Amino acid sequence: MILEQYKVQEANEQHLAAHKRHFEFVAASVSDVEALLQKLVDFQVAIPSWALGTGGTRFGRFAGGGEPRSLEEKMEDVGLLQQLNNSSGAISLHIPWDIPSNYNSIKALAAQHGLKFDAVNSNTFQDQPGQEHSYKFGSMQHVNKAVRKQAVDHNIEVIKHGVELGSESLTVWLSDGSCFPGQLNFRKAFQNTLESLQEVYAALPENWKMFVEYKAFEPNFYSTTVGDWGQSFLYASKLGDRAYTLVDLGHHLPNANIEQIVSLLLMEGKLGGFHFNDSKYGDDDLTVGSIKPYQLFLIFNELVEGMDARGMNHASDLGWMIDASHNVKDPLEDLLQSVEAIMCAYAQALLVDRKALVAAQDANDVVAAQEILQNAFRTDVRPLVAEARLRTGAALQPLQLFRAQKIRQQLVAARGSKTVATGL
Amino acid sequence: MILEQYKVQEANEQHLAAHKRHFEFVAASVSDVEALLQKLVDFQVAIPSWALGTGGTRFGRFAGGGEPRSLEEKMEDVGLLQQLNNSSGAISLHIPWDIPSNYNSIKALAAQHGLKFDAVNSNTFQDQPGQEHSYKFGSMQHVNKAVRKQAVDHNIEVIKHGVELGSESLTVWLSDGSCFPGQLNFRKAFQNTLESLQEVYAALPENWKMFVEYKAFEPNFYSTTVGDWGQSFLYASKLGDRAYTLVDLGHHLPNANIEQIVSLLLMEGKLGGFHFNDSKYGDDDLTVGSIKPYQLFLIFNELVEGMDARGMNHASDLGWMIDASHNVKDPLEDLLQSVEAIMCAYAQALLVDRKALVAAQDANDVVAAQEILQNAFRTDVRPLVAEARLRTGAALQPLQLFRAQKIRQQLVAARGSKTVATGL
Amino acid sequence: MILEQYKVQEANEQHLAAHKRHFEFVAASVSDVEALLQKLVDFQVAIPSWALGTGGTRFGRFAGGGEPRSLEEKMEDVGLLQQLNNSSGAISLHIPWDIPSNYNSIKALAAQHGLKFDAVNSNTFQDQPGQEHSYKFGSMQHVNKAVRKQAVDHNIEVIKHGVELGSESLTVWLSDGSCFPGQLNFRKAFQNTLESLQEVYAALPENWKMFVEYKAFEPNFYSTTVGDWGQSFLYASKLGDRAYTLVDLGHHLPNANIEQIVSLLLMEGKLGGFHFNDSKYGDDDLTVGSIKPYQLFLIFNELVEGMDARGMNHASDLGWMIDASHNVKDPLEDLLQSVEAIMCAYAQALLVDRKALVAAQDANDVVAAQEILQNAFRTDVRPLVAEARLRTGAALQPLQLFRAQKIRQQLVAARGSKTVATGL
Amino acid sequence: MILEQYKVQEANEQHLAAHKRHFEFVAASVSDVEALLQKLVDFQVAIPSWALGTGGTRFGRFAGGGEPRSLEEKMEDVGLLQQLNNSSGAISLHIPWDIPSNYNSIKALAAQHGLKFDAVNSNTFQDQPGQEHSYKFGSMQHVNKAVRKQAVDHNIEVIKHGVELGSESLTVWLSDGSCFPGQLNFRKAFQNTLESLQEVYAALPENWKMFVEYKAFEPNFYSTTVGDWGQSFLYASKLGDRAYTLVDLGHHLPNANIEQIVSLLLMEGKLGGFHFNDSKYGDDDLTVGSIKPYQLFLIFNELVEGMDARGMNHASDLGWMIDASHNVKDPLEDLLQSVEAIMCAYAQALLVDRKALVAAQDANDVVAAQEILQNAFRTDVRPLVAEARLRTGAALQPLQLFRAQKIRQQLVAARGSKTVATGL
Repeated sequence: MILEQYKVQEANEQHLAAHKRHFEFVAASVSDVEALLQKLVDFQVAIPSWALGTGGTRFGRFAGGGEPRSLEEKMEDVGLLQQLNNSSGAISLHIPWDIPSNYNSIKALAAQHGLKFDAVNSNTFQDQPGQEHSYKFGSMQHVNKAVRKQAVDHNIEVIKHGVELGSESLTVWLSDGSCFPGQLNFRKAFQNTLESLQEVYAALPENWKMFVEYKAFEPNFYSTTVGDWGQSFLYASKLGDRAYTLVDLGHHLPNANIEQIVSLLLMEGKLGGFHFNDSKYGDDDLTVGSIKPYQLFLIFNELVEGMDARGMNHASDLGWMIDASHNVKDPLEDLLQSVEAIMCAYAQALLVDRKALVAAQDANDVVAAQEILQNAFRTDVRPLVAEARLRTGAALQPLQLFRAQKIRQQLVAARGSKTVATGL
Repeated sequence: MILEQYKVQEANEQHLAAHKRHFEFVAASVSDVEALLQKLVDFQVAIPSWALGTGGTRFGRFAGGGEPRSLEEKMEDVGLLQQLNNSSGAISLHIPWDIPSNYNSIKALAAQHGLKFDAVNSNTFQDQPGQEHSYKFGSMQHVNKAVRKQAVDHNIEVIKHGVELGSESLTVWLSDGSCFPGQLNFRKAFQNTLESLQEVYAALPENWKMFVEYKAFEPNFYSTTVGDWGQSFLYASKLGDRAYTLVDLGHHLPNANIEQIVSLLLMEGKLGGFHFNDSKYGDDDLTVGSIKPYQLFLIFNELVEGMDARGMNHASDLGWMIDASHNVKDPLEDLLQSVEAIMCAYAQALLVDRKALVAAQDANDVVAAQEILQNAFRTDVRPLVAEARLRTGAALQPLQLFRAQKIRQQLVAARGSKTVATGL
Repeated sequence: MILEQYKVQEANEQHLAAHKRHFEFVAASVSDVEALLQKLVDFQVAIPSWALGTGGTRFGRFAGGGEPRSLEEKMEDVGLLQQLNNSSGAISLHIPWDIPSNYNSIKALAAQHGLKFDAVNSNTFQDQPGQEHSYKFGSMQHVNKAVRKQAVDHNIEVIKHGVELGSESLTVWLSDGSCFPGQLNFRKAFQNTLESLQEVYAALPENWKMFVEYKAFEPNFYSTTVGDWGQSFLYASKLGDRAYTLVDLGHHLPNANIEQIVSLLLMEGKLGGFHFNDSKYGDDDLTVGSIKPYQLFLIFNELVEGMDARGMNHASDLGWMIDASHNVKDPLEDLLQSVEAIMCAYAQALLVDRKALVAAQDANDVVAAQEILQNAFRTDVRPLVAEARLRTGAALQPLQLFRAQKIRQQLVAARGSKTVATGL
Repeated sequence: MILEQYKVQEANEQHLAAHKRHFEFVAASVSDVEALLQKLVDFQVAIPSWALGTGGTRFGRFAGGGEPRSLEEKMEDVGLLQQLNNSSGAISLHIPWDIPSNYNSIKALAAQHGLKFDAVNSNTFQDQPGQEHSYKFGSMQHVNKAVRKQAVDHNIEVIKHGVELGSESLTVWLSDGSCFPGQLNFRKAFQNTLESLQEVYAALPENWKMFVEYKAFEPNFYSTTVGDWGQSFLYASKLGDRAYTLVDLGHHLPNANIEQIVSLLLMEGKLGGFHFNDSKYGDDDLTVGSIKPYQLFLIFNELVEGMDARGMNHASDLGWMIDASHNVKDPLEDLLQSVEAIMCAYAQALLVDRKALVAAQDANDVVAAQEILQNAFRTDVRPLVAEARLRTGAALQPLQLFRAQKIRQQLVAARGSKTVATGL
């Protein structure tokens, strides 16, 4: 074990007095702090297996050391995050990068780390060695039925792995699209994709959900066949009740109002889940909350409002995942920062005075509505998030502890300094 | 009459020899030039009544002279355009700016100029003198039912005017939205708007269509309640078979692939019509084809392909309108340039070798697909468009004739140099 | 007097106990809280005279009531803001909207309200009644020398008004540019503009600064002749030492990194001042901090770092102004929110641990650098800002007091409900 | 030899009659067609050595066959392009991907193919095996002087290779920047970069130019240290007379007016050269002219106008290069399409009636100015470009000949189907 649990407690005790002072100060302004804390405790964000190593761009990758060399080591890393923050209790696997050699041992490992298996992810945007057909010109959209069938079969195989592990959802992200005008017949590409998705949907277990992820551009630079929420919604509607739209924060055109999209998808009962990250220019896959934290808060504000309006359970009725890339940071430190940002935004959204907000909206009191949101956002909620961690045995200051315990150095010592994790 | 018809013929005769040389050269490469010319002849673009005067921005307006002072003068202006290019055979009225005082005389005037009445347009984005409720906080989305009812009643009144004049469609553009986070509950705003639209839809004559126009932003700068094609599609789907999405080229986020949206809306049977213009930054309302003519061609390429695939009539099964603002140009000259750009793009789209394109797409021959589109676009189609005009008695060179005949000067002499047309 | 000073004190006493608790909590984490408070006290943001009435868009304006009808009433409004927050101690006048009829009485009024006269602003983007030449095709860029001279003369007249009132800077925002390709020769437009600016610069008093404001687009929609910081920098460099670039937050292309621009302009000694506002899509002129508060903080972070590096005085060595438009809010309430957002961002920037940040940067410790900035930003600094107000006799809760004292209702009663202030 | 020269002539003879008909038609409207043809003949675009293989994204790469395996084979490929279109008479090498093992044999090979060596390119955005310091946190901006020195030394080595081959310019593209707020001190990063560039500049031969390329984002996603034309201009100005800005069309924020930038850089004598490509979303590196051909024309319009105004030689006074990536097309076919698009845009720009345009601008006749540009752009100039090829012995229809002669198949046969060229 990399981090003995007693060290977490030791560190917490050091910070306890200061924490209590901060917590009590902010708790005094919260109407039902216990209910809020319970929601924070319950909220878990899945860690993607492909984000545990250093990421890169088309220009290169600058790997760090101690990256996980196997699915088992990836799960160790997520287990470590979970031990530190108790908000990372799930892992989202990517096939074929994470095909388990032995389901039982992997499940046992998951149980040991307190991890669930979140959505499984298929990959038809790359060619794998030995693959019969190439996805150079798309997968589910492909003009050749045999290519489409290969993509469908792959997705069905992904579901099978997921079933064995206890996953209950499949995320389909298609890079299908075109780089130049004329390359595709948009309508036929849509219809081929729909037909392919329908074949996968037919293989979906009854208790599963299918998430149809959209993306505006990249790696195709003229069109994407599931390019925006409207297209994803069309597919999901035609597929059936268990098909949903998945929102990745970085997959939009400049200036898009993502929180409105979230609200409308919830209204339609078609929001399935989230890929959290942040961005300034495109799908930059930056640390959650590192660029536009107010937008993140506004999204959570809509999530809380919309889920409550539908009687949904915040923790379990949508899929919460991070999808970021860590090009210049230690991946585990970066993930700790991302989870912290998510928890802060969620806590702030829970602090919004809903009654007052409805009243302001009903009175067209724009000034008051803004004040209400800003009051929640300007509140320093870090002590609330820390208290939720404290109560579940996790670290008051996860990042500080990660560094103090020299965990990366331990990982490098154990795994080597030249490891490269599978992923992007 | 401002422009005696014989002057058109006189001018054409001057240019005829040169035109014939150009036309014959390009016609030699067209497989069925007569069919193509007939399509060009049939294609008519409606002129918006509000675009006949100088436009402006929030910073000011620099009016020109001779602007139409009444609906009658607006129709004269459109009649003049139609006389010049025979592709502007319809006018799209805006209520309350264009309320006819006498339907019969207006209809007679239209007949005299060879004009039809295209879609009628409602206005709930401004307050009119004497109006009971303000639209400051929206119209169909408004939290106050009475405001919504006022907006619904206005739209029903607009339909009544349209029925009297022979229009068969209503364009609803709502500026409804919000300027600040928290101002609106997005879901309730959507539902209020839907309910309002349903009440208008219920009043729609059987042979009418309702066009639901979307816009990303402006005049609201945080959210718009019909903000993108996905939202418009949702409304139109919930409303019924006679509700359609209207696409305005300037109403998108940066870099949007509008041609793909067009293709998918056609696929779903939900494309209703177009507002043509061009833009570099936002809803700049510039002359059609003045900034991104290749995009305009690609849109027409999808229109031709998609309409043909559904057996639709190019000229009559969609609503074609210009929606531009002329801040630094003579409005009539600007409209002549816009119509010319539309006709050129349409002609180029008709020239696309459809069979070869399908073959290239089926072979994933991206290079060939691009060549096919570029071959059409790089063809100088102006002689084809001019020939279509020539055959219907319009001017070979409309803009040149407009200037040679000093038409603006005549209008100024007749109407004055300080007139300001109603509109934006 | 609209708001008797004792009412401010009465209200403060009600909130004092709670405030003290909040202030002491946050002050405990600040190393030199007194120094920080003094900086907050010293920092003053100029209120633009044109932002005291309801703003609008090209689609319309929905005026509120009680808007100031004269320069005197505008100054009363700013005086009121200053009384409430003690951070609005200057007014920025716009000529010809605010030409004083009697300098002495205006100066006496300013003294009475504790106001300074910040930068004066010229207007060559609109035609005024009786003006000889039109600015339809630009002012300082115009192909006609006489038009350029008219624009130059106007600016010199603006300087004269400013000299009389005690202003020490001129802000030149030019809407000059073009709407269509071909309209302008970019080089000649630049050179004409430079020559015109040089003539104005020659008339600038020795103790004055000239601010050259840039803007990407609007009201010209193809090019702007002072379009980005690079162009403004070129002009300012060629003009001389007293010419500077002015940064308006809304005047950039999508995704621009404004904080980097700020840093580089400071490095070059060419940053002159700021127009604060916020935006999501374009020059939306929204309340400061209402959309991207973290960006605002990052900008202040660069300002504090860069000004300190040059030994500049935060309060006096740059021009700080708001330039927002209030379409759906009470202008005074909106301005209170804007000033609060500015003060919070400034306070957060002052909290940044500079030594630790330099150390993190020197170690390429990206994670730590982010933590340091986020620690400052996530701190609830409102009690610090309130304490600064308290110490100078302003209101602990300005907006609340504005409402409690029914100030808008008093203004409506005094001025009427149909007033429309000059401005945009 | 892959393509015997007589086959070019044979093919040309087949197309000659049709070509003559087309050429004579368009030539009839050109005032001095011989002068124009000579300019087209003289104009040469450098092919980047890294664009001869299939490109990719961070998500993967789908290689084609027959890619060049060595510098020699890359030069063969460019020689082939030159044989086909006679407009690709230069190659731009990238170090370390293209380090020549023997200068003389490489120069002999170049002479044999009629190729010059255009700008040499350095690479400090990737780590090479055995490199002492990593560029993970930048190169010339790096906080560590030793890293900066390594980057400087590399650039000086690149110059040495260039000198041996007869290059006369160095292109420095730096990916230096940051991914997160706080990571960099912008000012220090600028100053470090400037100091590094000065050291390279000091090593520049007297007859050389240094091109400082800017880019808005990618691979750094928060800031880039040479991020826009303004920054590049600052560096180039501080460096000296032989330092220039290089414009890559894909390296801008959304909606940027690149043609205005081009005009102003020419005005300042600081435009050094171009990287041609096209894009819809970011640095998509698509085929030149495939997305926004009118923008390409407008850029050439400014180039012709601005270079003529300064008495510059179109062919030799700026560096012309392609910088595209071919993810779904045969690289050689793609390059043929790019060169064709460049030649067409240049020809159209040469057709612009300069006198009439100046007259229209001087009269603020926006309509006429637009007509003049559109007249040139709508002209089908392909026969002019083909005639220029014909006269120099190149192919009338390069792409068609490439396919007819099964050149790719020959390359695959010679080089294998699994080759992967160095590059991105």
